[in-house]
Amino acid sequence: MALYGVIMAGGSGTRFWPVSRRSIPKQCLHITCHKSMIQETVDRLSPIIERDKFYVATGHHLYEAIKQDLPDIGFILEPVAKNTAPCIGLSMIHLLHNDPEAIVLLETADHYYKDEDLYRQHLLGAIAHAATHDKICLIGIKPSYPATGYGYIQQGSLICNQGIRIFEVQRFVEKPGIDVAKGYVGSGEYLWNSGMFIAKAQVMLDEISLYMPHLYAGLMRIQSALKKADKKVDIVTQEVFESLPSAEATSIDFGVMERSKNVVVVEGIFPWYDVGSWASMEEIIPKDDNENVVNTAEYVGIDSRGNIIYSTSKRLITLLGVNDMVVVDTDDAIMICPKEKTEDVKKIVDRLKCQGMQGYL
Amino acid sequence: MALYGVIMAGGSGTRFWPVSRRSIPKQCLHITCHKSMIQETVDRLSPIIERDKFYVATGHHLYEAIKQDLPDIGFILEPVAKNTAPCIGLSMIHLLHNDPEAIVLLETADHYYKDEDLYRQHLLGAIAHAATHDKICLIGIKPSYPATGYGYIQQGSLICNQGIRIFEVQRFVEKPGIDVAKGYVGSGEYLWNSGMFIAKAQVMLDEISLYMPHLYAGLMRIQSALKKADKKVDIVTQEVFESLPSAEATSIDFGVMERSKNVVVVEGIFPWYDVGSWASMEEIIPKDDNENVVNTAEYVGIDSRGNIIYSTSKRLITLLGVNDMVVVDTDDAIMICPKEKTEDVKKIVDRLKCQGMQGYL
Repeated sequence: MALYGVIMAGGSGTRFWPVSRRSIPKQCLHITCHKSMIQETVDRLSPIIERDKFYVATGHHLYEAIKQDLPDIGFILEPVAKNTAPCIGLSMIHLLHNDPEAIVLLETADHYYKDEDLYRQHLLGAIAHAATHDKICLIGIKPSYPATGYGYIQQGSLICNQGIRIFEVQRFVEKPGIDVAKGYVGSGEYLWNSGMFIAKAQVMLDEISLYMPHLYAGLMRIQSALKKADKKVDIVTQEVFESLPSAEATSIDFGVMERSKNVVVVEGIFPWYDVGSWASMEEIIPKDDNENVVNTAEYVGIDSRGNIIYSTSKRLITLLGVNDMVVVDTDDAIMICPKEKTEDVKKIVDRLKCQGMQGYL
Repeated sequence: MALYGVIMAGGSGTRFWPVSRRSIPKQCLHITCHKSMIQETVDRLSPIIERDKFYVATGHHLYEAIKQDLPDIGFILEPVAKNTAPCIGLSMIHLLHNDPEAIVLLETADHYYKDEDLYRQHLLGAIAHAATHDKICLIGIKPSYPATGYGYIQQGSLICNQGIRIFEVQRFVEKPGIDVAKGYVGSGEYLWNSGMFIAKAQVMLDEISLYMPHLYAGLMRIQSALKKADKKVDIVTQEVFESLPSAEATSIDFGVMERSKNVVVVEGIFPWYDVGSWASMEEIIPKDDNENVVNTAEYVGIDSRGNIIYSTSKRLITLLGVNDMVVVDTDDAIMICPKEKTEDVKKIVDRLKCQGMQGYL
């Protein structure tokens, strides 16, 4: 019974344009430190998962970029992005093909942790539980503020209190409004849904079989091709992904977790950050004396506070009387927006696509 | 009796940083059209002044840049910048050395005119008056709004009404507050001081002799060196400029015009724009459908209005939810500030100097 790490890294992270590009996805950006986010993710888990037991689950178009960052890590390639349920299903098939006893930890590459020891301590508790129970362990995060950008999980009965606390799941709630979120945080009964899962691979697959029959049938076709050492396994995989009904090209939360009777949630009491947009840099990078987050030495600000300045160019960035703005500079493009608009940066990418400005995508 | 044009271009225009630099002064920028501002100034006056009768009065450090723009134009070089009175005095000495009958039109390179014919029509009226009277003709501009950034001239008696109207000068007023400015505009008795002058060169020099004795004595030393075809004329000029008492290293307005009995003012009824800072581009360049002034095709704006975008780089500039900002991009530096702060751009230049960032000056 061995532990595997699967890093789900299929997104391109258009909200980090202009630094993220089609060939340089968000997970390859060096936002949080000198390493890329995906390198950091693997390194952070390496004390508990052997290096040769990591896989990156991503699309063909991102393979080259991520391979450069992680040349020694295996890949599970989705022929086409169909959300997390098919991605996880495919990963389970590949893991089980080599190790029917596999336990898997599913993480994404866009999380950041200030206390990595505490984070791993929680994971170890979850791994122990998943190894000894046929359950899927979600990692929930004790909310530190009434976030409206995350889903919430209501905790049910306490079922394990050894080092970490594990609860039954009462219910899942989609991203709430601010007033509802305040109520959740005040009640002490809700956790943020972090999108991390730990389970036996077979348990995960069994749950898919219960709630996503089309996906499961397709996965069985792929498993069969794998077993025959069929050279056509890639073609079969592509057929399965492309013929998936839209109702099953969905997230694992919606497809499985919200319906499953075998899901438990770990109460994660550690600082967790979702690096979702430029604004999230404020939580991660220390600010200067003027409350600016600045990643470049080539910056001069006068009467400018609360800005986020991120540069991959060598150019000098100067601000005069500018407050609460995001300025991102690269060799060929600049993006400027107020901090509260960073979720909409993908609109720029959409516009560039519409206008045929491929060179900037 | 011939007409000469002297373009006063000794300033470096730090308010147009990062496009203006020590070696690329404002007057060499292509802000208003495909030509530089100083080329445009000479071209605009060429219908009334012969090409070989133009001079640019500027400093040694700007000579190379301006010479590239105007290879066929003569130069009068100030050894050190001492404001406009010494600059004009030196120019008069040089003009008179070659032509004791010279009439001179003094312009700067940072004015913009939408109706050039009407502008020249006023100048011709002023030239006719200056040629037939021992007077200095100022060009005043009929104010179109209560500007607080210009000096005002109160009109006295009407002394000429042939095509254009010329008045005696009642008094000069320094830049007023907004309420005073409103009163001036409402009264119909005040004109903006444009900084343009037309006079016989000898009349200008005579007025300097009356009110600026140290400067005049120095100018006589330079004149004497010129007459002797003395090779040391540059050294003498340098000595004169460097030894000038600070009270006479001043503007021609303060040094002469405000005291002289021989000053008249032409009522300029034509659109005149002082290209003083990035914000002034709004008056000159047509706006797009979102009220943005944009000089580059490489711009994508979403929900962004009233901005000024000026680029000399090839980079894409993208704005999302940004209003009333100025974004200036060059190959090595970006400047971002709100429109109402553009007068303070020189603060950035000062800071760069302080921090020893010479490469950006």
